[in-house]
Amino acid sequence: MVRRTLFFGRFQPFHLGHLMVVKWALEERKYDEIVIMVGMASESHTPRNPFTAGERIWMIREALREAGIDLSRIITATLPTMEVHVGAAHYVLTHVPPVESIITRNPVIARVFREAGIKVEKPPAFNRNELRGEHIRRLIAAGGAWEHLVPPAVVRIIREIDGVARIREITTED
Amino acid sequence: MVRRTLFFGRFQPFHLGHLMVVKWALEERKYDEIVIMVGMASESHTPRNPFTAGERIWMIREALREAGIDLSRIITATLPTMEVHVGAAHYVLTHVPPVESIITRNPVIARVFREAGIKVEKPPAFNRNELRGEHIRRLIAAGGAWEHLVPPAVVRIIREIDGVARIREITTED
Amino acid sequence: MVRRTLFFGRFQPFHLGHLMVVKWALEERKYDEIVIMVGMASESHTPRNPFTAGERIWMIREALREAGIDLSRIITATLPTMEVHVGAAHYVLTHVPPVESIITRNPVIARVFREAGIKVEKPPAFNRNELRGEHIRRLIAAGGAWEHLVPPAVVRIIREIDGVARIREITTED
Amino acid sequence: MVRRTLFFGRFQPFHLGHLMVVKWALEERKYDEIVIMVGMASESHTPRNPFTAGERIWMIREALREAGIDLSRIITATLPTMEVHVGAAHYVLTHVPPVESIITRNPVIARVFREAGIKVEKPPAFNRNELRGEHIRRLIAAGGAWEHLVPPAVVRIIREIDGVARIREITTED
Amino acid sequence: MVRRTLFFGRFQPFHLGHLMVVKWALEERKYDEIVIMVGMASESHTPRNPFTAGERIWMIREALREAGIDLSRIITATLPTMEVHVGAAHYVLTHVPPVESIITRNPVIARVFREAGIKVEKPPAFNRNELRGEHIRRLIAAGGAWEHLVPPAVVRIIREIDGVARIREITTED
Amino acid sequence: MVRRTLFFGRFQPFHLGHLMVVKWALEERKYDEIVIMVGMASESHTPRNPFTAGERIWMIREALREAGIDLSRIITATLPTMEVHVGAAHYVLTHVPPVESIITRNPVIARVFREAGIKVEKPPAFNRNELRGEHIRRLIAAGGAWEHLVPPAVVRIIREIDGVARIREITTED
Repeated sequence: MVRRTLFFGRFQPFHLGHLMVVKWALEERKYDEIVIMVGMASESHTPRNPFTAGERIWMIREALREAGIDLSRIITATLPTMEVHVGAAHYVLTHVPPVESIITRNPVIARVFREAGIKVEKPPAFNRNELRGEHIRRLIAAGGAWEHLVPPAVVRIIREIDGVARIREITTED
Repeated sequence: MVRRTLFFGRFQPFHLGHLMVVKWALEERKYDEIVIMVGMASESHTPRNPFTAGERIWMIREALREAGIDLSRIITATLPTMEVHVGAAHYVLTHVPPVESIITRNPVIARVFREAGIKVEKPPAFNRNELRGEHIRRLIAAGGAWEHLVPPAVVRIIREIDGVARIREITTED
Repeated sequence: MVRRTLFFGRFQPFHLGHLMVVKWALEERKYDEIVIMVGMASESHTPRNPFTAGERIWMIREALREAGIDLSRIITATLPTMEVHVGAAHYVLTHVPPVESIITRNPVIARVFREAGIKVEKPPAFNRNELRGEHIRRLIAAGGAWEHLVPPAVVRIIREIDGVARIREITTED
Repeated sequence: MVRRTLFFGRFQPFHLGHLMVVKWALEERKYDEIVIMVGMASESHTPRNPFTAGERIWMIREALREAGIDLSRIITATLPTMEVHVGAAHYVLTHVPPVESIITRNPVIARVFREAGIKVEKPPAFNRNELRGEHIRRLIAAGGAWEHLVPPAVVRIIREIDGVARIREITTED
Repeated sequence: MVRRTLFFGRFQPFHLGHLMVVKWALEERKYDEIVIMVGMASESHTPRNPFTAGERIWMIREALREAGIDLSRIITATLPTMEVHVGAAHYVLTHVPPVESIITRNPVIARVFREAGIKVEKPPAFNRNELRGEHIRRLIAAGGAWEHLVPPAVVRIIREIDGVARIREITTED
Repeated sequence: MVRRTLFFGRFQPFHLGHLMVVKWALEERKYDEIVIMVGMASESHTPRNPFTAGERIWMIREALREAGIDLSRIITATLPTMEVHVGAAHYVLTHVPPVESIITRNPVIARVFREAGIKVEKPPAFNRNELRGEHIRRLIAAGGAWEHLVPPAVVRIIREIDGVARIREITTED
């Protein structure tokens, strides 16, 4: 029986903290497969969600590939919003193969899935001061050093899609 | 550079024709990766869409695994509807990593993606009389032999989720 | 502990068959309360859904009042569509107080709620030839006798809102 | 002719101020029936909307029952959002039986329904310092005394659904 | 005081019958301005709605320009669907400047706007056998002569956007 | 070939800065036609969006008429939200006739349309301290002098629809 878990986030962008959670799930928690659910998939090009869902999936896969993780154990999925309520937990679950747990540090999501009967796994907090999407987006906008906070593949893709200029442009005050 | 193509369908259920298209894309057309986009993801338990998106992704992955296809080359994705218009083609494309083509036999989808600047690949028609979702669902509802039209993994999953009873029940006249 | 059941339909219009189901639930099945969920609430003035949700709730309440049923045992609710899938069953359930069962003759709805862990009660078929909304709407459109198929309160409300003219007008061919 | 009014709110949770408004409408303003429209029905488990629509309807009915109010005079209804514009006023009105007025202290809702031709009744302000949903939710989250601000039935239901833990959990900072 | 009327349709494509209705409204009915509301704006590239809303607005304006009609008397507008109910009539009306009437031959739309208090103008039936969008689309798909049924500007635009090939392609059976 | 540009905003209300942009586009930039796209069309009667889309189109047309601008060069359009992402740019473009550029000072909209291949025209900043919708709405709410900041036709329409009272009422604290 394949053992699967669900990892829910916005991944704006996918950073080293996310990478450590994926490794922790596959190596320490010994799941066979992990479903990485990209929330807020229908928003992009805003200060809070600069990258499209497709760009985020691309970053996730290339980062995991370069980290030597077998991509056949990864299932990426998308959800238009991050709407949270008990019915929505069941809705999310109809979009993925059977999972036995959800990995989240978000207390609202934890509560909702727990009430829907899904086990919640709280991952360790890997350097939460620096490894936060908001912090990284702010560094990119301000011209600070951000490259050491994300996997090299993510640096490469952000450059390829001209993502630094995009983030600066959309966070400029008029 | 990773070469990717997009394969769009409802996969109700994933049958041998779909499997042949995936093989054709990876082996003959030599794509590195294929994005399998499951349309009508928000509908299930109806005569036309009996299986949830999650069940369909599960079938797709297990069928490809047993066919010896490297799952690391497969990216599954979902879309709530199958809305078709030029703007929607671009919307679909924001949900997947960069692709150079779309595989479809559907003339509307072909036209829309072609107008959006995406190359269209028309796959060979593998026994279209029998290998159609509608035909297979009707066989299941009527108690006919359908198991030889889908990969063994799909037979197994449909049994595990009690899918034959589900299809029969929802197609019963009141 | 209050025992509740859920009765789901479009009620276009509320007819004697529906009235018999409500009585059967309260008297024979001995539920304390019944939640009457009006589906397709956002559509009206079409041949299939001529009455607004508010008009249908009004008909239901006046028909039950004149039948001597204690309205304090009735909870009316509305749902924009009749979307059917497992996640939607949970969504429906977040809109009503706790229920132990659903009353339905519709095989799709039955299956979906059963998979969501809700008991399904199949009511007796009270004269299904004549007591069907579609049959009654057709009689109204064609100028036939329909008044004996619905409770007197429904006749009165349909007249008060000029419902016969509405149905005839919207089913006229151009 | 049945005289009805509409009372629109989120009821997170239903508190003594709401109860006083219902009594005022039925006793002082002498309406025969009151439609209690639960807004933001599709959101729950968030700090601002912790309870599902169904839980709120349940609280409303049990609180009114224990206050000796005849439940047959109460019509509960739900609306997915609290969208406010003139067209939406008419949309809301298609979801309820005919009403002659709306009870609201919200100036936006008042204006919109007045422009749609509905009389607006502004209820007295019953102790608005303490009898506000936001204040009560904050007390619950902080472990303060909140039970005297809501009807006993609401205390009972919040306990039964483990609502105190839910509110604390979803308002915890990560 | 500017006198305005509303003309609601899908305009797939804008044909000589539509042109005659616009002339009739401006010349015989002596309206100062006409709001042309393009319904089903969010669908295109399907057999029933081959043209985008923008293409349809473009056809309408160029056809009226070449017919010598003063474009300053024309207001074009779009609506995602053609949803029909009383609340929707008010919703439509919030999207256009004040109008005193609606021009329609559709009985459902007529009824809904009449119940919303808007005067309905039924235009004369200009050769309804041939001047119907469905008939024209079928002629285009089948390679028949259709050019005499639409204004010359519409012929020109359909050619410019390669519309004949589009219609043929999307109506091809697989 | 008709040269068109797209001007995207909320126009709450249409003020002298907007008028100057339209003149600049038609006179200095020499576009033949300008598409004025009214965003947030589905919201009204809120502090941020007090006027309906129809009222805004009405203001725009009357202001341009009195400024001596040929209305036949103006195309008004509406969009329910102001959702911003690359797919949405294409979606917007399916709703208007072909345009060669978009006029915007908003950096997010500029970026999104530029990535979609549309030229961006940044208009001069005409007195941005006073000529901002937010500033004007605040003056109206506070009883200050605002009439000199909008075209006379807009003053007249706001009076005709009782807009000053509306803005004051909806910005009143409870």
